[in-house]
Amino acid sequence: MSTHLGRFLRGFRSLGSSPLVRTHPSARVSSRPASVRAIATFPLSIFSKSRDYSLPNSSWGPEMMQLYEHYTSQCEVETAAGEKVGGPWKRLPSYNRSLKYATGGVYLSKIIQSKARLFTRNIREVGAAFEYVLFVNEKEQRCLCLFQAGHLLEGPPGNVHGGAIATMIDTVTGTHATILSGPVMTANLNINYRSPIPLGSTVLIESALEKKEGRKTFVTCKVTSTNGSKVHTESTALFVSINVSHLLLGQ
Amino acid sequence: MSTHLGRFLRGFRSLGSSPLVRTHPSARVSSRPASVRAIATFPLSIFSKSRDYSLPNSSWGPEMMQLYEHYTSQCEVETAAGEKVGGPWKRLPSYNRSLKYATGGVYLSKIIQSKARLFTRNIREVGAAFEYVLFVNEKEQRCLCLFQAGHLLEGPPGNVHGGAIATMIDTVTGTHATILSGPVMTANLNINYRSPIPLGSTVLIESALEKKEGRKTFVTCKVTSTNGSKVHTESTALFVSINVSHLLLGQ
Repeated sequence: MSTHLGRFLRGFRSLGSSPLVRTHPSARVSSRPASVRAIATFPLSIFSKSRDYSLPNSSWGPEMMQLYEHYTSQCEVETAAGEKVGGPWKRLPSYNRSLKYATGGVYLSKIIQSKARLFTRNIREVGAAFEYVLFVNEKEQRCLCLFQAGHLLEGPPGNVHGGAIATMIDTVTGTHATILSGPVMTANLNINYRSPIPLGSTVLIESALEKKEGRKTFVTCKVTSTNGSKVHTESTALFVSINVSHLLLGQ
Repeated sequence: MSTHLGRFLRGFRSLGSSPLVRTHPSARVSSRPASVRAIATFPLSIFSKSRDYSLPNSSWGPEMMQLYEHYTSQCEVETAAGEKVGGPWKRLPSYNRSLKYATGGVYLSKIIQSKARLFTRNIREVGAAFEYVLFVNEKEQRCLCLFQAGHLLEGPPGNVHGGAIATMIDTVTGTHATILSGPVMTANLNINYRSPIPLGSTVLIESALEKKEGRKTFVTCKVTSTNGSKVHTESTALFVSINVSHLLLGQ
């Protein structure tokens, strides 16, 4: 299985380093196993220089920017009394590292790889590979990702590699499942490719909860053109909830 | 759909630039549509400096090297009369570019992206990302890939991203389907993740033809530890044969 622990653990970083604290699912930590909750007590200052890769940069095209602004404007709304409150959508930050240390002096030798980088954030050049930002709508149990595909993601000439598309589907559905169910592992990805995605395109990736059955979370996911008229892929994903303590303290 | 045209087209380069000419499926060109065959007449010297990424480099660990030598030794065998002939396996070269030009003065503007790089070969640092080499056994209709996963492919802490695994499955099954059926597009990938792959591991990715039905080619694929004892993923892939002329000359 492929685990989706990263998003969950990385969430703790935002407590100390990001202005987006209240937008992050780490707020749900109280329902997690003790071993995970303990991590939140780790001093977070070492992460303070982490770059949030989900923020706009100079490579983002007009389509990407317009959509970003549209959904960002729905993250905070004004009440009739002029008070600003959380809106239906929340933006999720995105870093290029997984958790390296835990609290209590426990050195997680098995998961420490000082050079390791998150696959989707492993290239520094802006615009060259995966440019994306995720928004979650908790009420509707939907997740939305704006994805602009760079020139280093080529598969067939001029188009995005099927594996790069699968990577984004795993990322979006896995993040969504983690928000819905806590730490999970990918158990199945079933992807139907309908039409190629040209390099440089901006597309929408939308995931929705299908159902939860015991430890299983079923999510559906669709990749479309930004106006929704063209379907690029349709997929389903199955995630299984895990107890992360064995992952943190040796397998 | 995700097209697997790259391997097919890139094959033509090896005619002029690689010592592995006889090991490459481009020998099957006579059964391809006219538009594809025509590409073979393009002067190949411009590709002569292409690096073949499937050759060993300093990052390959002992396990990767041992397996590479094992399968390479089966690419050429000696007869009783002392003559060297092709063995059961053939190594496939691997480049980081897709075809950029075609013959006859036709400038393929739609597929030219001068900076574009194949997703699995987009990082120059050896050992950092995807290190792999493919072997094909035409008689047994099997394809085998040796894959060493670098530190930039991280998903869950210390382990390979599910999307990076999907990328390799798409690469191996897509290459295999192209050898079996000519130019194809990925129509479906269905992946069951059984156990995580630690960063730095070398694993085997084996694909086998399940069946061919008209334009459809069904391939199965398994990712295991090098001794076969541990199953990491089991998957199926469906490819649909395409006429590539519309891809080359505008869609």
